[in-house]
Amino acid sequence: MAPNTATDALRDGKRRQAQALLRDGEVWLIAARESGVRPEPALTLVAGVDVTWDSLFLLTRSEAVAIVGRFDADAVPPGWTVHGYDADLRALLRAEVTRLGARRVLLNISEDDPLCDGLTAGLERRVRGWLATAADLPTLEWDSAAPLLGQLRSVKTPAEHAAIREAVQLAEAHLREMAAAARPGWTERDVAAFLHGLCRRDGAEPSWGWDACPNVHIGPDSRPSHAPPGDHALRPGALLHIDYGVRLGHGYCSDIQRVYRLPDGTPVPGEVQAAFRACWQAIQAGADALRPGTPGHAVDAAARAALVAAGYPEYQHALGHGLGRATHDGGTLLGPRWPRYGQTVEGPVRLDEVYTLELGVLVPGHGFIGLEEDVIVRDGPPQWLSDRQDDLKTLG
Amino acid sequence: MAPNTATDALRDGKRRQAQALLRDGEVWLIAARESGVRPEPALTLVAGVDVTWDSLFLLTRSEAVAIVGRFDADAVPPGWTVHGYDADLRALLRAEVTRLGARRVLLNISEDDPLCDGLTAGLERRVRGWLATAADLPTLEWDSAAPLLGQLRSVKTPAEHAAIREAVQLAEAHLREMAAAARPGWTERDVAAFLHGLCRRDGAEPSWGWDACPNVHIGPDSRPSHAPPGDHALRPGALLHIDYGVRLGHGYCSDIQRVYRLPDGTPVPGEVQAAFRACWQAIQAGADALRPGTPGHAVDAAARAALVAAGYPEYQHALGHGLGRATHDGGTLLGPRWPRYGQTVEGPVRLDEVYTLELGVLVPGHGFIGLEEDVIVRDGPPQWLSDRQDDLKTLG
Repeated sequence: MAPNTATDALRDGKRRQAQALLRDGEVWLIAARESGVRPEPALTLVAGVDVTWDSLFLLTRSEAVAIVGRFDADAVPPGWTVHGYDADLRALLRAEVTRLGARRVLLNISEDDPLCDGLTAGLERRVRGWLATAADLPTLEWDSAAPLLGQLRSVKTPAEHAAIREAVQLAEAHLREMAAAARPGWTERDVAAFLHGLCRRDGAEPSWGWDACPNVHIGPDSRPSHAPPGDHALRPGALLHIDYGVRLGHGYCSDIQRVYRLPDGTPVPGEVQAAFRACWQAIQAGADALRPGTPGHAVDAAARAALVAAGYPEYQHALGHGLGRATHDGGTLLGPRWPRYGQTVEGPVRLDEVYTLELGVLVPGHGFIGLEEDVIVRDGPPQWLSDRQDDLKTLG
Repeated sequence: MAPNTATDALRDGKRRQAQALLRDGEVWLIAARESGVRPEPALTLVAGVDVTWDSLFLLTRSEAVAIVGRFDADAVPPGWTVHGYDADLRALLRAEVTRLGARRVLLNISEDDPLCDGLTAGLERRVRGWLATAADLPTLEWDSAAPLLGQLRSVKTPAEHAAIREAVQLAEAHLREMAAAARPGWTERDVAAFLHGLCRRDGAEPSWGWDACPNVHIGPDSRPSHAPPGDHALRPGALLHIDYGVRLGHGYCSDIQRVYRLPDGTPVPGEVQAAFRACWQAIQAGADALRPGTPGHAVDAAARAALVAAGYPEYQHALGHGLGRATHDGGTLLGPRWPRYGQTVEGPVRLDEVYTLELGVLVPGHGFIGLEEDVIVRDGPPQWLSDRQDDLKTLG
């Protein structure tokens, strides 16, 4: 399997982008340990290295310093000043914090955004203990790195756009192969197994894991959920809904939904056609609202209102999320102002962010119509990374 | 690639083991979100499910309750009472905490043990906020789940022993194939690529990732580190050191080190032989000290003293660590009392735990001799899971 290793250019671009977001006297402190078991998503983003012992990565506007266990020192990529330690990192840390002129330390703590909440609770206590007020240390102010990190994750570089586009195009190619090969009698499991075979062939991974990606629903009795594909089988006239994406060797991924129908010699039923149009138009309404500066909840509200105006129930999730190294890649969420979304829907949409736009309708007696597209935020209308689905696709 | 999915029996066994360790009135609360990106190792251990939104798993002596987002509800395995929510989990959580008669809530927070530190800092704040004192809630005491979780991870069930043994045996088979195939001119990269090919063929993954596992060192100029394999090439008389393990589909893994020599028609140099014997004997001293009830640091001290008494420098790491679903699987560490190891070396060795025993010596002009074995703690001498290396192995 392809390792999820960003190229040097991708990773170094993100580190430089982070440094440009920092102010004088600020140190962004990324702390991690056993990151192979418990990845720190921010560390993956800016340094792309796995660490074993307690490790600290300090970024300022002009410097990048890594304090890691002796055996991990050689694995830190170029661009970082590396200190390897054996028994105790404290003296190194205190000397570096002083040398860097740190006045404000930013930690990866966020109640609302899981991708900005990479610091674990015990390691937080440890880091604060190491930097507790002492004669040899400047007085430090502490804050959350989430505003910086959310922006860093979500505002993509051109190299990241290219990496995501590559992942979108491979997922689309896989779905074309699947649609051409699908036969009556195929179950949801068969569809997933076929796509997994293409992933293995092409050195890719399903975006959200082998168990749950793709999400496949066939016919009226298969309800959308994150459960593994089941036994519902393709019969003439059946709808097939797929939520799928691939992660490539560089770690960037895609996330799209498509709907197909196995022909049965009769026209597509009117209620299926109508539901498809309503979904398409609601996504268009969301895309029309997706402009730099608009709050996330307003983009969701535009799509939601369009769907409800067409006579369909509200979807029970957010219209869209950031897409990048994760399928829920942090930053602003294009979602409703529900308690569980907290502050994540209040932030503004930003230029060069990449979002999904997704929603669906259950058509009783037929099945689930769900569409999902991937787009880049531009100054004008968003740029579609996916080859947008404009009509119900035909299988076989 | 094989998904890292424990069988139902393995996972349910761990859940029941955890429940037996809880006292009346105690609730072990495992909180997770976006676990595909940021796995919660305890959740993987007892429930084996990935969750997306804020999710809470509550275990008491007699009950297992999961509160997860609507779309994840179907993915929770049997044995859990599942509540799916849409907009807000708070009412569900408060009702369950009351119904379960909770008086003491245990959270996965540990300064010392990364595998017991699965709760992130922002999610900790959120969970405490949800359960802040209120009229409709019992008064709650908070504590760390680390003592319970460390024991749960480290004390293995018979099914876990069998799973680890399977992983040890596959790694050994791979190394035998590699040793038979190795040729003069092979670089460290070639050795790693050969072993990766066997992993793909057999549906396994390298225990600590494709980038860093195996760790390969050839000859006197290749220093032990966690860096990816390099360009040092096999020449007659060269030593080859490998640190390798595989993770199988059920998620359990192995971790062994072996040393080989490419013959050059002359006897093995005396200083190489002597260093090998010293390593072997130091590991034996560690094994002799590995008994239930002995503190971790005392086991390390026995091996360390043996190596130093033979005239070699101390190894700059711990003698051994727990082995299971992770290569550093929590619980007691068999390590020296260095600050960076904190409390992890103070705990006792327990019956049925699985440990590595590993150490090495750099022989100037020749290369690194490193040995690592995997053992189960028994009432008498430990049970060797690995086919112990008793002599320098020959390549080709």
